Amino acid sequence: MTRPFELMDLNLPELRRRAVQAARGEVPFDCLLKGGTVLDVITGERRLGDVGLVGPLIASVHEPGRFENAASVVNATGTFIAPGLIDTHMHIESSMVTPAAYAQAVVPRGVTTVVWDPHEFGNVVGIAGVNWAADAVIDLPLRVMLLAPSSVPSAPGLERAGADFDATVLEDLLARQEIAGIAEMMNMRGIIEGDARMEGIIQAGLTTRKLVCGHARGLSGPDLQAFVTAGVSSDHELVSADDLLEKLRAGLTIELRGSHDHLLPEFVAALNRLGHLPQTVTLCTDDVFPDDLHKGGGLDDVVRRLVRYGMRPEWALQAATINAARRLERQDLGVIAPGRRADLVLFEDLESFEARRVFVSGREVAAGGALLQPALEASSEILQGTVKLCHLSPDDFRVAVDSPDARQVKIATIDRPRFTQWGEAIADVVDAHVVPPEGTTLISVIHRHGLAEPIVRTGFLTGWGDWRGAFASTVSHDSHNLTVFGRNPVDMAVAANAVIDAGGGLAVVSDGIVQALLPLPLGGLVSQAHLGEVAAQFSAVRQAMDGIVDWQPPYLVFKACFGATLACNAGPHQTDLGIADVETGRLLPSPILQIF
Amino acid sequence: MTRPFELMDLNLPELRRRAVQAARGEVPFDCLLKGGTVLDVITGERRLGDVGLVGPLIASVHEPGRFENAASVVNATGTFIAPGLIDTHMHIESSMVTPAAYAQAVVPRGVTTVVWDPHEFGNVVGIAGVNWAADAVIDLPLRVMLLAPSSVPSAPGLERAGADFDATVLEDLLARQEIAGIAEMMNMRGIIEGDARMEGIIQAGLTTRKLVCGHARGLSGPDLQAFVTAGVSSDHELVSADDLLEKLRAGLTIELRGSHDHLLPEFVAALNRLGHLPQTVTLCTDDVFPDDLHKGGGLDDVVRRLVRYGMRPEWALQAATINAARRLERQDLGVIAPGRRADLVLFEDLESFEARRVFVSGREVAAGGALLQPALEASSEILQGTVKLCHLSPDDFRVAVDSPDARQVKIATIDRPRFTQWGEAIADVVDAHVVPPEGTTLISVIHRHGLAEPIVRTGFLTGWGDWRGAFASTVSHDSHNLTVFGRNPVDMAVAANAVIDAGGGLAVVSDGIVQALLPLPLGGLVSQAHLGEVAAQFSAVRQAMDGIVDWQPPYLVFKACFGATLACNAGPHQTDLGIADVETGRLLPSPILQIF
Repeated sequence: MTRPFELMDLNLPELRRRAVQAARGEVPFDCLLKGGTVLDVITGERRLGDVGLVGPLIASVHEPGRFENAASVVNATGTFIAPGLIDTHMHIESSMVTPAAYAQAVVPRGVTTVVWDPHEFGNVVGIAGVNWAADAVIDLPLRVMLLAPSSVPSAPGLERAGADFDATVLEDLLARQEIAGIAEMMNMRGIIEGDARMEGIIQAGLTTRKLVCGHARGLSGPDLQAFVTAGVSSDHELVSADDLLEKLRAGLTIELRGSHDHLLPEFVAALNRLGHLPQTVTLCTDDVFPDDLHKGGGLDDVVRRLVRYGMRPEWALQAATINAARRLERQDLGVIAPGRRADLVLFEDLESFEARRVFVSGREVAAGGALLQPALEASSEILQGTVKLCHLSPDDFRVAVDSPDARQVKIATIDRPRFTQWGEAIADVVDAHVVPPEGTTLISVIHRHGLAEPIVRTGFLTGWGDWRGAFASTVSHDSHNLTVFGRNPVDMAVAANAVIDAGGGLAVVSDGIVQALLPLPLGGLVSQAHLGEVAAQFSAVRQAMDGIVDWQPPYLVFKACFGATLACNAGPHQTDLGIADVETGRLLPSPILQIF
Repeated sequence: MTRPFELMDLNLPELRRRAVQAARGEVPFDCLLKGGTVLDVITGERRLGDVGLVGPLIASVHEPGRFENAASVVNATGTFIAPGLIDTHMHIESSMVTPAAYAQAVVPRGVTTVVWDPHEFGNVVGIAGVNWAADAVIDLPLRVMLLAPSSVPSAPGLERAGADFDATVLEDLLARQEIAGIAEMMNMRGIIEGDARMEGIIQAGLTTRKLVCGHARGLSGPDLQAFVTAGVSSDHELVSADDLLEKLRAGLTIELRGSHDHLLPEFVAALNRLGHLPQTVTLCTDDVFPDDLHKGGGLDDVVRRLVRYGMRPEWALQAATINAARRLERQDLGVIAPGRRADLVLFEDLESFEARRVFVSGREVAAGGALLQPALEASSEILQGTVKLCHLSPDDFRVAVDSPDARQVKIATIDRPRFTQWGEAIADVVDAHVVPPEGTTLISVIHRHGLAEPIVRTGFLTGWGDWRGAFASTVSHDSHNLTVFGRNPVDMAVAANAVIDAGGGLAVVSDGIVQALLPLPLGGLVSQAHLGEVAAQFSAVRQAMDGIVDWQPPYLVFKACFGATLACNAGPHQTDLGIADVETGRLLPSPILQIF
C-alpha cells in the first residue's frame, strides 16, 4: 500500500500537465534519452525507443527520433534502458558500511530502490537504531523503503538482544508513514504455535494493510501452510528447487537472494523448467559482505549471476523491477512507460550489466560507475559505544566444572555448521575445567548490550574443522552479542579484547597475536570508512581466517560464523543465555549434561 | 489500494489462529474440498490438492488425503479448482437487469467479483444512481467493487446527460470507502488537451491513490503517451492486435473485453506470439446484452471463448484471477493459497468451464448452475419515472427548413457506423422539410432527463443500410437520451411513444405497428424482471430488428445502435445538442449546412 508522501512529487497538477504537453511534442522534455533499446518488462521485448522525461516522470516512450526538443539530451545509443533495479529484502548493516556508503556503491550500478530491514541496528540499539536508519536515508540518491524489525530478538526467551520489540512497538512503527511494513518474521515456531506476541505483531501488520514479510527457513508442508495462513507473505530463505516450488505454490512472494550463490543455478534450472517467470518472483541481496559489495555489487550482481547461470536477461530484469514494484504496491516504479517514475539505468549490455548512467526520479545521479554528487553521511553518535564490556581473560573461555572430584563430563554439542543438530561427547576434566574434546571448536557468546550481566556462555561445536586460532565478532546474527570461536582460550581472549577495544568489529588471532582487525564502531556492526577501505579490511580478515580454518563449502564457510547464534532457526544454537533450541524450547545455560 | 473494510473479516485474530491450527491438522477445517485438481495461477501448474477452509480463509492447500477432519466435506473429484473469476470492467446496466439478477446469472458460473462502473445510472439519475448501486450490491453473493463514474456526461458541452459530475463530485465519491477508484475516463481529447475539468478529476484519483481507469479508444502514438502520462492506467477499447501491443507497452492494464468477439482470435494470436501472458492482462465483459448473458454468461464466457480461440486455459484463468486481483490491489483474491480469501469455483473441465460449485468467502453460494439462496432485490423507486417526455408526433422527426423558397439543402451526414466520418449530401426540400436522401437513415435524439427543453435533434446517417422500420431506445450510450433510428417519421413516432409510455426501453416498429417492446422502467435502462424474461424480450427485439435492417457485421450490427451517440469517441455523433465532434469541438444544432 503506497504511502501518500511517496507519490506526492508525481501527482502535482502542473507537472502532469507539462508531461502531457511534452508527450504531445508541444513543449520540450526536461531530458530525452535518445537511441537506446528499451527493455519492456511487461511484454518482454527489446525495442528501440527514445524516452522523454519531465521532472520525475517518464512522459513518453516513442519511436527513435520522433521528438528532438529537450532541455538536455542523453545519448543512449548502444545501451539497454531498464527500470532501476529494486532489492526487495536486504540489511545495509551486513555490508558493514553506512547507508550513504552503501548508496555510493550500488546506485552507480543501477540499483535505485532497496527494502531495508534495519533489524541489526534494531537488535543493538532498539528504536533509536530504527530512527537513525530513517534519518540516514532521507537525502540519499538511493530510494530506501524501511521495514519495521519484527524479530527483536529473533527468538525471545532464548537470547537477549539490545532491545525488545513487542506488538506495541511494532504498532507504533507501523503507524509511521515511512515504514512500509513488517520486516522478516523469523520466529517461525512462535507463529506456527500461536504465540501471543507473534499474533500481536502480525495483527498489527494485517490491520494496517502493510507488508508482512517472512523468513520461512526450513518450513514445508503443514508448517508452511500455517505460517502463510497466519498472514506472512514473503520468504527469502530458500534451500533448494523443491523449496522454491513449494513456496511459489503457497503464494509467497519469493525474494530470491544472491547471498547463497551455490543455490542459484538450481533455482534458475527450476524456473526454466516451469517455462515462464511467475510474477511473484523478486530478487534480493539479503546480506552482502563488504568485499563482495565492492567487487561484485548489490542487486545488480544477483541479476548478473542469474543470467550467467542461464536465466534469460528479460526474466532477471522483470524479477528485479516490475515484479518487485507490484509486490511493494509501488505502481510508479519498475516499468518504463508514460506516467511512471523515471528511475532508469542504461546498461552497456545484458551480460556484464555494466551501468553507463543512472537516473532516479528523472535526475541523473550516477555515470561511469560513480555518483555525480557524494551521498551525505548522517551523524552517528547514537550508534557508538555499544560494546559495553570490560576486558576478558583466557579463563573466561574455559568451561568450569563445579565439582572438585570430577574426572569427566558428558557435554552437549552443537553438531554441523548451519543445519545444526544436538550431539553429545565425553570430555576430560583438568583443573576443574572441561578439556575440549578432539574435533570440537569452542563458541562463546557474551551479552554486550549492557542489559544483563556479561556472563560468558560457552558451547562446543563439531564439524567446524581444526581451528588454529580464534575469531571474535560483534556481528553475530541476530542479537549481535560478542561471539568468539576458537580452540585456545588465550587466542580467544586476545580476539575478544581487540574487538572490545575497537568498540566492536571482527578480529582474527593466532599465536596470541591479532592477525587482522576490522573495527566496526557503529553499533558494533558498521564502519564509517569508505567501502573500499572496509572491503580491504574485511578481505584481510577473510584471508587471516583462511589461515586458521580449513573451510569445507558449502556448509563450513566463513559466512557460517555470522549465523552460528541465529536461534530462531531449527536446531541448537549458542546464545548469551546458553544453548538454545527454538523447536523444543530447550535452553541449557551450560553444556555440561553430566559429571562423572 | 485495499480499503480497510474489504479485509476486516480476514484479519480477525481468532480466525487467523483457528486457520493456523487447522493448517497444522490440530482442529477441523470448516470445509474441506477433497480430490480436486488445483489450478495454480502463479506457477501455471495443475496439481492434485485438497483445500481446507476456515471461515472466509483458505487455511491450507495440501496433498490429497493428508487431512480428513472437517465440519463439511466437498467432493471435488474430477473438478478443477480455480480462484473465483474477476471481471475488471463492466456495467451491470448494459445487461438490462438489476444487480441481484446479474449476480444470480453469473455467480453460479464462477464469477465472484466484478468491478462495476455504474455510469449508466449516473448519467441518468446522477449521484442518486450511484448511491442506489452502492446499496443494491451490499448483500449480494457477488462481490461488486464500485467505481466513481468519471464521464458524466462523456463529452461535456457536446451532450447533456441527467447529471454532471465535475471534480468536486468525484472527490466526494472517492472519499467513500466503497469506491475503489475512478471509472473509465472517456473524454480523451479533454485529457490530452489539458482540460481543467479532466485534470481535476484525475488529480482527485491520483491524490487518493485509487484506480484511475481509462477508455483509450483509437489512441495511439503521442496521444496515447499523453493520455497515460496524465495518470490513466487501464483500457478496454482495443481494436486490433497492434492496438493491444501498443497499449501493453504503454504500461496500461489491459481489460480484455469479450464484448467484441470478432477481435478475440486476433488478440489470442498476438499473445501467443508474445510467448507469455503479460501480468497486466486482465479480462472483462464491459457490456453484455441480456440474451448473451443468459445463454453464454458473464466473464466465464470470455474465458471460455478465449480458450476456444486458442489461448491456454492457464493463461485465461491467470488473466481472470491473479492478474485482476493484483491490478485491484486485492492481495486476498485471485490465488488458491493459504491466507487468501476462499473465493473458489469448481469447474467440470477447462473447455466448457461449467461450474459445478462456487464458494465466496468460504461459503458455498451456488451449485449446479444456480444460487443456493436467492439474491436480495433492492427497492428501486428512485430509478423510476426517468423518461420525462410527452408523446411525440411524426413531424417531430422531420427536419424543417426555415426558408420558404428552399428547393434543396446541403446537409452534413454522419458516415459509417462505429468509426464515423463527416460527409455531405444534397437533399430535396418538400413542404419546407428535408427529404432524407437515398442511402440515409435518420437518427433523432431527444433530451429526456428533464434538464432541458426536449427538442428533437435529427441527423442523417449513411452506411446503415435500408431501414424498413424504426427503433427507439432510452439505452443510448452514454447520456441515454431517447434515440430513434428510422426512415419513416410515422414509424419513428410510434416507436418513440411506445418507449415513453413504458417509462423507458426498446421498441421496434414497422408499418406503424410495434413489433417488439422491451420495457426498461428503471432509469430507462433496466428491467425488474428475471433475466430469462428480459433475455426473451431482448431476443424478440433483436429478431424484429433483423426484420427491418440488413446487418453487415462487424460494423453494421445491432449493437451499433447503442453506441451511435457516444460523443466522446472520434468522429461525428448525434446528440441531444446536435451533431458533435469531440476532436474539433464542432457542434451543429442542425444538419443543414446550406440552403439553395
